Amino acid sequence: MLISRNLKLKLILFYTWKSLLYYTLLAIAVFLLHDYYKIIDLSIPFNTITALSTALAIFLGFKNNYAYDRWWEARKVWGLLVNYSRVWEREVRILIGKNDLEDQTEINSLKRKLVFRHIGFVNALRVYLRKTNGFINKKVELFEEENQYVEVKNYLDPVEFVHFYNKNNPPNYLLNEQGKDLKNAYDKNWIKEYHLIRLEETLIEFNNIQGMCERIKNTPFLRQYSFFSRVFVFIHASLIPFAFVSGDLHLAMIPISVAISFVFLALDLIGERTEDPFENRLEDVSMTALCTAIERDLKESIEEPSLPEKIKSNADGVLM
Amino acid sequence: MLISRNLKLKLILFYTWKSLLYYTLLAIAVFLLHDYYKIIDLSIPFNTITALSTALAIFLGFKNNYAYDRWWEARKVWGLLVNYSRVWEREVRILIGKNDLEDQTEINSLKRKLVFRHIGFVNALRVYLRKTNGFINKKVELFEEENQYVEVKNYLDPVEFVHFYNKNNPPNYLLNEQGKDLKNAYDKNWIKEYHLIRLEETLIEFNNIQGMCERIKNTPFLRQYSFFSRVFVFIHASLIPFAFVSGDLHLAMIPISVAISFVFLALDLIGERTEDPFENRLEDVSMTALCTAIERDLKESIEEPSLPEKIKSNADGVLM
Amino acid sequence: MLISRNLKLKLILFYTWKSLLYYTLLAIAVFLLHDYYKIIDLSIPFNTITALSTALAIFLGFKNNYAYDRWWEARKVWGLLVNYSRVWEREVRILIGKNDLEDQTEINSLKRKLVFRHIGFVNALRVYLRKTNGFINKKVELFEEENQYVEVKNYLDPVEFVHFYNKNNPPNYLLNEQGKDLKNAYDKNWIKEYHLIRLEETLIEFNNIQGMCERIKNTPFLRQYSFFSRVFVFIHASLIPFAFVSGDLHLAMIPISVAISFVFLALDLIGERTEDPFENRLEDVSMTALCTAIERDLKESIEEPSLPEKIKSNADGVLM
Amino acid sequence: MLISRNLKLKLILFYTWKSLLYYTLLAIAVFLLHDYYKIIDLSIPFNTITALSTALAIFLGFKNNYAYDRWWEARKVWGLLVNYSRVWEREVRILIGKNDLEDQTEINSLKRKLVFRHIGFVNALRVYLRKTNGFINKKVELFEEENQYVEVKNYLDPVEFVHFYNKNNPPNYLLNEQGKDLKNAYDKNWIKEYHLIRLEETLIEFNNIQGMCERIKNTPFLRQYSFFSRVFVFIHASLIPFAFVSGDLHLAMIPISVAISFVFLALDLIGERTEDPFENRLEDVSMTALCTAIERDLKESIEEPSLPEKIKSNADGVLM
Amino acid sequence: MLISRNLKLKLILFYTWKSLLYYTLLAIAVFLLHDYYKIIDLSIPFNTITALSTALAIFLGFKNNYAYDRWWEARKVWGLLVNYSRVWEREVRILIGKNDLEDQTEINSLKRKLVFRHIGFVNALRVYLRKTNGFINKKVELFEEENQYVEVKNYLDPVEFVHFYNKNNPPNYLLNEQGKDLKNAYDKNWIKEYHLIRLEETLIEFNNIQGMCERIKNTPFLRQYSFFSRVFVFIHASLIPFAFVSGDLHLAMIPISVAISFVFLALDLIGERTEDPFENRLEDVSMTALCTAIERDLKESIEEPSLPEKIKSNADGVLM
Repeated sequence: MLISRNLKLKLILFYTWKSLLYYTLLAIAVFLLHDYYKIIDLSIPFNTITALSTALAIFLGFKNNYAYDRWWEARKVWGLLVNYSRVWEREVRILIGKNDLEDQTEINSLKRKLVFRHIGFVNALRVYLRKTNGFINKKVELFEEENQYVEVKNYLDPVEFVHFYNKNNPPNYLLNEQGKDLKNAYDKNWIKEYHLIRLEETLIEFNNIQGMCERIKNTPFLRQYSFFSRVFVFIHASLIPFAFVSGDLHLAMIPISVAISFVFLALDLIGERTEDPFENRLEDVSMTALCTAIERDLKESIEEPSLPEKIKSNADGVLM
Repeated sequence: MLISRNLKLKLILFYTWKSLLYYTLLAIAVFLLHDYYKIIDLSIPFNTITALSTALAIFLGFKNNYAYDRWWEARKVWGLLVNYSRVWEREVRILIGKNDLEDQTEINSLKRKLVFRHIGFVNALRVYLRKTNGFINKKVELFEEENQYVEVKNYLDPVEFVHFYNKNNPPNYLLNEQGKDLKNAYDKNWIKEYHLIRLEETLIEFNNIQGMCERIKNTPFLRQYSFFSRVFVFIHASLIPFAFVSGDLHLAMIPISVAISFVFLALDLIGERTEDPFENRLEDVSMTALCTAIERDLKESIEEPSLPEKIKSNADGVLM
Repeated sequence: MLISRNLKLKLILFYTWKSLLYYTLLAIAVFLLHDYYKIIDLSIPFNTITALSTALAIFLGFKNNYAYDRWWEARKVWGLLVNYSRVWEREVRILIGKNDLEDQTEINSLKRKLVFRHIGFVNALRVYLRKTNGFINKKVELFEEENQYVEVKNYLDPVEFVHFYNKNNPPNYLLNEQGKDLKNAYDKNWIKEYHLIRLEETLIEFNNIQGMCERIKNTPFLRQYSFFSRVFVFIHASLIPFAFVSGDLHLAMIPISVAISFVFLALDLIGERTEDPFENRLEDVSMTALCTAIERDLKESIEEPSLPEKIKSNADGVLM
Repeated sequence: MLISRNLKLKLILFYTWKSLLYYTLLAIAVFLLHDYYKIIDLSIPFNTITALSTALAIFLGFKNNYAYDRWWEARKVWGLLVNYSRVWEREVRILIGKNDLEDQTEINSLKRKLVFRHIGFVNALRVYLRKTNGFINKKVELFEEENQYVEVKNYLDPVEFVHFYNKNNPPNYLLNEQGKDLKNAYDKNWIKEYHLIRLEETLIEFNNIQGMCERIKNTPFLRQYSFFSRVFVFIHASLIPFAFVSGDLHLAMIPISVAISFVFLALDLIGERTEDPFENRLEDVSMTALCTAIERDLKESIEEPSLPEKIKSNADGVLM
Repeated sequence: MLISRNLKLKLILFYTWKSLLYYTLLAIAVFLLHDYYKIIDLSIPFNTITALSTALAIFLGFKNNYAYDRWWEARKVWGLLVNYSRVWEREVRILIGKNDLEDQTEINSLKRKLVFRHIGFVNALRVYLRKTNGFINKKVELFEEENQYVEVKNYLDPVEFVHFYNKNNPPNYLLNEQGKDLKNAYDKNWIKEYHLIRLEETLIEFNNIQGMCERIKNTPFLRQYSFFSRVFVFIHASLIPFAFVSGDLHLAMIPISVAISFVFLALDLIGERTEDPFENRLEDVSMTALCTAIERDLKESIEEPSLPEKIKSNADGVLM
């Protein structure tokens, strides 16, 4: 997630230089052909562009709306994860227990285990989502981060970690383990009939959170829309110099047609990169920071002595 | 669901060649009449088109917004089905049972039956939705898939399958059967009074999921809108060559008017095909892949020895 | 609800012929005055129309968005009614009962009564909604359907039907009767304390469903918006011939200005007719079909011997 | 709420005559200066207006969308109040009681009190919302209604009414009183542990309903937006005559520029008046009618002998 | 939050004078170069601006929609806080207690503590949100307010306040303390098994409310969008004088190009300032007023003798 209010030129050029180069060369070529070699019939009436711009505007507005909605839904889901992580810790504390003194050590160690495994679940979900999947053609990125399941090791029992590591769906495995421990505690009478359901309902929230993330990750924004918006931006940009060449702009026609093409390119590209919020790149939802924030909150609540450092944005204003 | 980032030309032409041919022939005809046979009065002022384009833009933006919303709602509903399938498996595991040793074999076989029948329900829902209904004029499609109720056979008791097969609403029958088994287990004291409700509430989720899918399947996007958008795209495309013929474009007027018509056609057609997500064609929500994913998750959780293969997208980048 | 993909010309003309006639006569008059009698000052610069078109576009886009949202919300609410009808039948089956053999006949007849009265409720809601209310100026419609409370007679006890028939709010009366029967069954120990609440919460869903339908029925789309959109479409259409008359269109100006006016008229009229989904006309949510579908599902579940026929769309492609 | 399909001219002029007068005088002045006194440089190219219109269109579309959303949310909230009022009556009836014959008279009088106090709450909420608050500059309105807390007197115990009348937040006081009576009934064993929660959850709905109404009432649509939309409509209207004066419109330029200005004014003004749904004026949500509808439904359910008259729209088509 | 219907010129100039100065100087410079020094080639055809305006319009409409949605969501969340604060007070009153006379003093003092700590939570949340965070470049503001954790002191036990003051997440600490007190009361049998869950579910609402506020506070509106909208508004405004200089506007071209640039600037700037609702500046959600309103409601309900004064808007029409 970008934090700094201004985008660095480096960043913008990194993702657009190829298109900008094409726009500039095309504009120069058209200018030379028209003004030097006097091939006047080259020009297109400006109305053509206007008609195309309208249709393109629909496409791009549409694309950006839905791209942003995807991103913001992803962020909302991770916000829910923060909220229900705090809920889970509190519920484990107040809904598990016995009035008599028996089993108190076991109960306390169970509670600690349930909270730590939850921190493990949160991190596992992050790693699970940031793994690249087949259908995003991964390009070289300016910023990347390491995300590995071994980061989850500290929060789990060593034997459990081995099972965890070999599952198809590791985060779901951890939710199942939470369920098993609740069942055992219920069978030992550490949890009341009704309180078990409240804990189960909090687990359902985590199922829903994981499922919503998987949905956004595994269902790309409909290819029909993003493909044609890219194609139409290209056609539009290719026609623009022909429309401007006939005015009285002379040389000024080159920067102006590049600038206008760039505006549409920017709209298309921002949508393109915003629509996938879990791809381990700079536009990502800042899952690493959120995982640490959850860990800090939960460890403070269970009065662990040392908390991990808060994650800050890096020198380029990116918070992962 | 299309997975590949770029659409193949084959695919685009398959669905648009008739319209493209019409646009081209019309543009050529208009060009010849005007530039060769000098029927100059043929031209229309460009402003006419602009006014029409505005109204068309509203229509198409509107149509695509709602088409996408339908598709995305369908995908969300299937995402819920993934989440609650995992919930169902966990709840069956932790909310059914007895503390003493009696009935343990029966209870375990009941649990297995409830999970397998659920996998059956998920597949039955897919088949139920992909059956064509009367009011979609089924055209020839590039990609299709076989969807038959016999695929559900493996997950059901043979007798139950026969009943299932003869029902008007087979998936709903399976939910009713789940209810009956819960009732029996409750009467045998394998489920507590309160826990029965938690299981029932998970069944309600499945009723809602099925009902939401049926709603999208059985209620086409309002015909008023899609009919007129098609008609207006046709009128618009028919007028465009007359507007361009009077400029200085000469021969260039042919590709340009075809291109602009194509942009509007694409917007219309994408909306048209996105709005129905359960029609057994390439834009479908990838229900086959999701069914298998659910089966894999649930079988992994109940520790079945062999899992079905994960569904991958085919050579054309389509995931069903 | 229109099912057929193409609208018949008959249908379109039925609702628009007056406006079309006006547009045509006006265009002819303007043409004659200008081209024959050479009253040249008659023309308006096209820019005037463009400015007006923009404002009109906002209005019409706005109107259609909200009209569609109203319609789709109505359809969603009826979808919920389908889902919770199935839930109600299942809950009546599994949450009412006693373990011993006493009262079994009475309990079974109560269950049947609760399900039949529910089918009665669904049909009563349909009739209640399709009754015209004062503030829709009912015009002659192409398709209409009979909706009378006597259709509910078969699902109710004869005495109850008499009371039902004389109430201000008949569907709400049936929900109250359901509540009374639950109360009696609870007092007789046929329903557990907690299960009573689950059944009550399902009744709350029906209260919400009925209330949402009443809200849409009784609150017209804000008159401020629909009135001015109609007025502005009229003004716009009245100015259009004056703008086209000065071009080189000659006679072609007549069909073109009628066509453009028609596009805006269509947008306005579709919105106007979509915004009220319970008016017993062809754009209605297909409540008759949904009522029968619910009856079929519920009767199949309680194993009634004969099911009513599924409702199909009529010869004109309309499903009520 | 306006019910009649057509707005009376009286109504439109009442709210716009000042602006219309200004538009007309300005257009006449510009026309005279240009055509009579030949100050030709007065004219502005039409493109200026087009650029401004686009920006204004965004503003007005935006404003009307959110204004309508506010109004419709307000209506939805009152719809919820209708639904949950029916729920409250039914729950009071079926969830409070005892199996033995003791206390029956007291219980019945408590039930009646809970239902009547609820009717009091609904009316108190209406009065509370229609009281003007400081930051709406109340202008003279065509239609107003009396709303006073004394109207609530009939539904409350006389002592309770005195307390009620002197509270800062009278409707909230009534919800607290409902809570106290539930608590007492629970202490006397007239309500089960679990049923108390179901009743409490219905009270939470009323808290939410009241809070949502207060939010809409106390938070005006962001002033930044409504202020600038008014200013820009004014600037736009002031420039329009200068743009039209240079065409060949001559005298026709006066009605046309007034008409176009009026379209934008109408869009602005409708938004401005729709955005506040609880201001005791003709665009209000019809709270008086809804209060009476709730009273009729509840009294019919508890079999009160006489029901209040249904509220109809007045002669001008306004339903309060 | 701005309350006054009209914005003062002082306020508008405070935030825009730099841009306005730039626009004016640029327009004057272009005018002089063109009309005095006759550098005629300076002009740009107006169509260039139109194309750019379209794309800019998409950007700005998009930005303002989402900025408003963020603000309104923030306001909704604080509305929920109002509602559930009232719920909390009532639930504490009716769900905690014992039928016999034992412990009554302790129970009453616990109830008072739970309500006061909640008022503390509400204020702590306000302070927590209004603390500036790193990534908003805080500029000098016209209106600011003091927000310090010491304001919470009165509502907490002195020892608790010290702990509270030293936490990373002070509001969350208070929710955890509420949980601990509920647990103790439950262990002492002052709360029933099921009632504990209802109270816990109200705490979950507060977790969600806090989390939603944190999400909006910590996730800026995507920088990609706000950066480019600012850049494009700047480019657009820089080109405008060149487009107007060639008309017949002469000197009038200066105020007109400044006015048009200002319209776009206003749209951008309002979005920019609306998108962050918790920054201790005049566009903030009025959290101070809401905190006091909650305190007044709760103290009135528990019959505290003295209530704090209601917060009014200040002389400039700003309500914090």
